[in-house]
Amino acid sequence: MLTINRLNQTEAKLIIDGAVKKANELAVPMCISVVDESGSLIAFERMDGGKIHSITISQDKAFTAASARKGTHEFNQACIPGHENNLFGIHTALGGRMCIVGGGLPITCDGKVVGGIGVSSGSPEQDLGCAQAGVDAFSRITAASVSLNVL
Amino acid sequence: MLTINRLNQTEAKLIIDGAVKKANELAVPMCISVVDESGSLIAFERMDGGKIHSITISQDKAFTAASARKGTHEFNQACIPGHENNLFGIHTALGGRMCIVGGGLPITCDGKVVGGIGVSSGSPEQDLGCAQAGVDAFSRITAASVSLNVL
Amino acid sequence: MLTINRLNQTEAKLIIDGAVKKANELAVPMCISVVDESGSLIAFERMDGGKIHSITISQDKAFTAASARKGTHEFNQACIPGHENNLFGIHTALGGRMCIVGGGLPITCDGKVVGGIGVSSGSPEQDLGCAQAGVDAFSRITAASVSLNVL
Amino acid sequence: MLTINRLNQTEAKLIIDGAVKKANELAVPMCISVVDESGSLIAFERMDGGKIHSITISQDKAFTAASARKGTHEFNQACIPGHENNLFGIHTALGGRMCIVGGGLPITCDGKVVGGIGVSSGSPEQDLGCAQAGVDAFSRITAASVSLNVL
Repeated sequence: MLTINRLNQTEAKLIIDGAVKKANELAVPMCISVVDESGSLIAFERMDGGKIHSITISQDKAFTAASARKGTHEFNQACIPGHENNLFGIHTALGGRMCIVGGGLPITCDGKVVGGIGVSSGSPEQDLGCAQAGVDAFSRITAASVSLNVL
Repeated sequence: MLTINRLNQTEAKLIIDGAVKKANELAVPMCISVVDESGSLIAFERMDGGKIHSITISQDKAFTAASARKGTHEFNQACIPGHENNLFGIHTALGGRMCIVGGGLPITCDGKVVGGIGVSSGSPEQDLGCAQAGVDAFSRITAASVSLNVL
Repeated sequence: MLTINRLNQTEAKLIIDGAVKKANELAVPMCISVVDESGSLIAFERMDGGKIHSITISQDKAFTAASARKGTHEFNQACIPGHENNLFGIHTALGGRMCIVGGGLPITCDGKVVGGIGVSSGSPEQDLGCAQAGVDAFSRITAASVSLNVL
Repeated sequence: MLTINRLNQTEAKLIIDGAVKKANELAVPMCISVVDESGSLIAFERMDGGKIHSITISQDKAFTAASARKGTHEFNQACIPGHENNLFGIHTALGGRMCIVGGGLPITCDGKVVGGIGVSSGSPEQDLGCAQAGVDAFSRITAASVSLNVL
């Protein structure tokens, strides 16, 4: 039997709040999705002014990152035609659901992927910055939790 | 130019919280979606234990209710084959996105649809009960707002 | 070689105008689609207040009526499970694009289908009434044209 | 509650007429779509001779431009593999509905996106020229309206 660790709703909201805080700093209203380790949506927020196409793209970024266990921006470079990794073409898989634009990150705990975050509505760099802020918010509580366990 | 009223993020969260409270009373973890008046997703929450297929179905219920401006349970009866309303078959439209199972309700303000809520993971009655609790939570703040304006 | 007669843009607009006039009488803002004999869209109008899901459904009704060369309401009865025509199930074909709800009518000229109209946002009866009004508007110009030819 | 401005049907037709006039000058029959600020179709015209694939592409261009709040031709350059903006791959999102070929423009009023226009059947330059003509037709009436308000 496999035992899987998976983000819960409380953690998902905290991750979104971390991304929202960064989006407010950037003054770019974002769509933010958090998925579990299977790529299934846990929580979503479209900030007032977030873009319509970003509803789906943020979900696809979170799905891709959680499933592939790496940032979507890493795919972007590897998908350049002729790149040594030969990943060109993966962006059309699953009806285009594999998203290779920056802004999706896996969320890990104890070295295992427990979910993913995807952010969309700004530039890839802005989206990635907000996704990272979401990951950082999660890292802080897990670190705090570890500290408590150590005490 | 048309002027449209649309739920904002704060209102969407409050609506979801109303539905979550009811779901907890029922002890049925739900997927809850809130869309705007055009059927586009604003906020989503999968309570811990919410079902995977309900991620999509809750969105489709919210979309259907906001767009059709009536509860999805009203479609359910009218779609029975041979029903005098002759709506049988609408449930396969839009690739099946038109959802005729109870649990989707429009959200109105001053007689206009400003969004929709869709709930899924329980029985249609349970889903509808939670959707109604979300609508009620919104009605309470708009009523409070009206009272303030009157003062 | 086949010679195909097909609605032109001027005729499509005239058909839509006929349907809009009826929709205004009914005080139900409609989505109205006109397709050619191959089911491909020629013209579309969403009256102010027309429903979002009706954008697609009106197109599907027009497509179904032009392609099947009969009204979508005729399918509705024939699709009742157990009906002698055994058409139950056709409504899920083409990803649900086959629409069996009333409101789609073929448009004919000299006994041949030259296009189709689909109307959605009201009840099936209201939708069908507006579609018929569109067909009637077209019939009046073809009758006028025939009269001119006779003179 | 958010308050949104959205193109109405009269404005959508005027925008299409502007694009049609330009298409006639170019002697290229076009498919022309106008969507609202959420990317939902308001009006569509396939000029006699417009291409079949352009029915969908014009809608996708209008959707993309309205949702992304920029011209589809701007995406085209930024999506070149290896481009510093790292947007390569966005063109396959939403099942390919994100259209990065020129011919889609947002339509703005008072600095806010109120809709979009998409044109297809010619070269990207011709499509963009017709889309711009549609935007210009809208700008003339809003400018006229502003003048009236000033008097």
